Amino acid sequence: MSYSTVERGCRNTLEYRAFFSGPNGKMLSPFHDIPLFANAEKTEYNMVVEIPRWSNAKMEINKEEALNPIKQDVKKGKLRFVKNIFPHHGYIWNYGAFPQTWEDPNKTYEETGTKGDADPLDVCEIGHKIHKLGDVIRVKMLGTMLLIDEGETDWKMLAIDVTDPLAPSLNDIEDVEKHMPGFLKATYEWFKFYKVPDGKPENNFAWEGRAKNKAFAVDVVNECHNQWQALIGNTVDNGGIACETTTVAGSPYLIEPEKAQEICQNAATPGAAEAIDAEVDKWYYVIKQ
Amino acid sequence: MSYSTVERGCRNTLEYRAFFSGPNGKMLSPFHDIPLFANAEKTEYNMVVEIPRWSNAKMEINKEEALNPIKQDVKKGKLRFVKNIFPHHGYIWNYGAFPQTWEDPNKTYEETGTKGDADPLDVCEIGHKIHKLGDVIRVKMLGTMLLIDEGETDWKMLAIDVTDPLAPSLNDIEDVEKHMPGFLKATYEWFKFYKVPDGKPENNFAWEGRAKNKAFAVDVVNECHNQWQALIGNTVDNGGIACETTTVAGSPYLIEPEKAQEICQNAATPGAAEAIDAEVDKWYYVIKQ
Repeated sequence: MSYSTVERGCRNTLEYRAFFSGPNGKMLSPFHDIPLFANAEKTEYNMVVEIPRWSNAKMEINKEEALNPIKQDVKKGKLRFVKNIFPHHGYIWNYGAFPQTWEDPNKTYEETGTKGDADPLDVCEIGHKIHKLGDVIRVKMLGTMLLIDEGETDWKMLAIDVTDPLAPSLNDIEDVEKHMPGFLKATYEWFKFYKVPDGKPENNFAWEGRAKNKAFAVDVVNECHNQWQALIGNTVDNGGIACETTTVAGSPYLIEPEKAQEICQNAATPGAAEAIDAEVDKWYYVIKQ
Repeated sequence: MSYSTVERGCRNTLEYRAFFSGPNGKMLSPFHDIPLFANAEKTEYNMVVEIPRWSNAKMEINKEEALNPIKQDVKKGKLRFVKNIFPHHGYIWNYGAFPQTWEDPNKTYEETGTKGDADPLDVCEIGHKIHKLGDVIRVKMLGTMLLIDEGETDWKMLAIDVTDPLAPSLNDIEDVEKHMPGFLKATYEWFKFYKVPDGKPENNFAWEGRAKNKAFAVDVVNECHNQWQALIGNTVDNGGIACETTTVAGSPYLIEPEKAQEICQNAATPGAAEAIDAEVDKWYYVIKQ
């Protein structure tokens, strides 16, 4: 299977959108139309890359717009870039989402008493290759951390590209510490402090930030896949989420390929990227050394 | 004063060269023809940026070729890229050299018993802006660490761009730890371990890696400026260093502008950059966590 992006608008502008097309060249939603599982045994998952490692632009699958193109998050009318938290540069993983998953805001996670953040599950891909925005890659599950992001349940799934040279050696969460000493601590600190330069408090975690293992993570993904199935089947309040799909047979949100093509064509005309403000390169010293 | 680069050959190839031209548009050597001091009071220095922060290509002023263009270092016939030492990404400063300085290989530094590495003085510029290869920026001195790099004296001068928002607050080495906690330790660890993934031993430092203050650093620069004056005046063995100059009156190495122009024109034709191997993006875990 191969997916590609169709870019609309200009990079680093409010109008930028990356739409997705499938192996047959037809438009689809990266949220609803890319299968979660990448093999028949369900041991590999598709991941949609939103943010390449070592970059700062907060790119994400848009929940409100039809076909859910990737766009840059906007705060107070301005494009959002995450700050560099010393010693880190931008995101320290390839960051993205599992398609066909949803953290239902109507469900309370009992251990923390928090509700889902109404997003697809977030994934940190920890392999050595830098992937591009919109890449759809196959990953294996390693574990998960549970971040409480401004009071909402926000699982951070940990996974690795199956083609990474280290992938055969990483089969569960303890292998990460063995082969990448300090990486889980860095991941914890990154999420704990990343909003502090923007005037927000430190984030909290369940289990004092300790990562849960692969089996636990697989259960989380399955649960969120079920919640997405309820969403796309319209058996739960969608809370305003754009559920247009071109592949999910039986969904009340199914649309024709021509309609999907039209949605993409109606977006802004592509063009050259705008420059990024040098302020984005600044380092902030908030992790206690 | 404004300098600019004239690029020859293609980026990421053995033939790439960045030559320099001065405010009058005439070619010059970044080693010999850019004044060390950037103001009459000698409180500010010119720095030639060789390597932008967060990049990996080991670019440097070439000592052997006439007019000393910046080129990429080569090991065993291949372009050299420094490894990413977790948690760092590439170089963690803008890295470059002080023009009109030289660490004389005939001189032994008594405290360590090591000889100069026959290079211009290295500078780590610690401001928040990412500078470009070939930029000539004005910096103020903050301190220095003495690295013993494979047995040679290799001063690492610490300085900051005078236009950086933090520059007014940084006046000596202790201000660095105050405003950028952990940065000096990161600098020490970076230099200690950066060659380990290439199979080399950890580097050693004088004074257990502690940085010396501004006054000490100023003395080092003055001494190396004197050593350069001996070099350019041909009162010391130049050891094969290309000393062509277009500005140093009285130097036996003075050449005509037309000759300098010809040297640049004879270099490879410019063209599009080659791609960089994805291997360069790998992280190595060698700093004890």
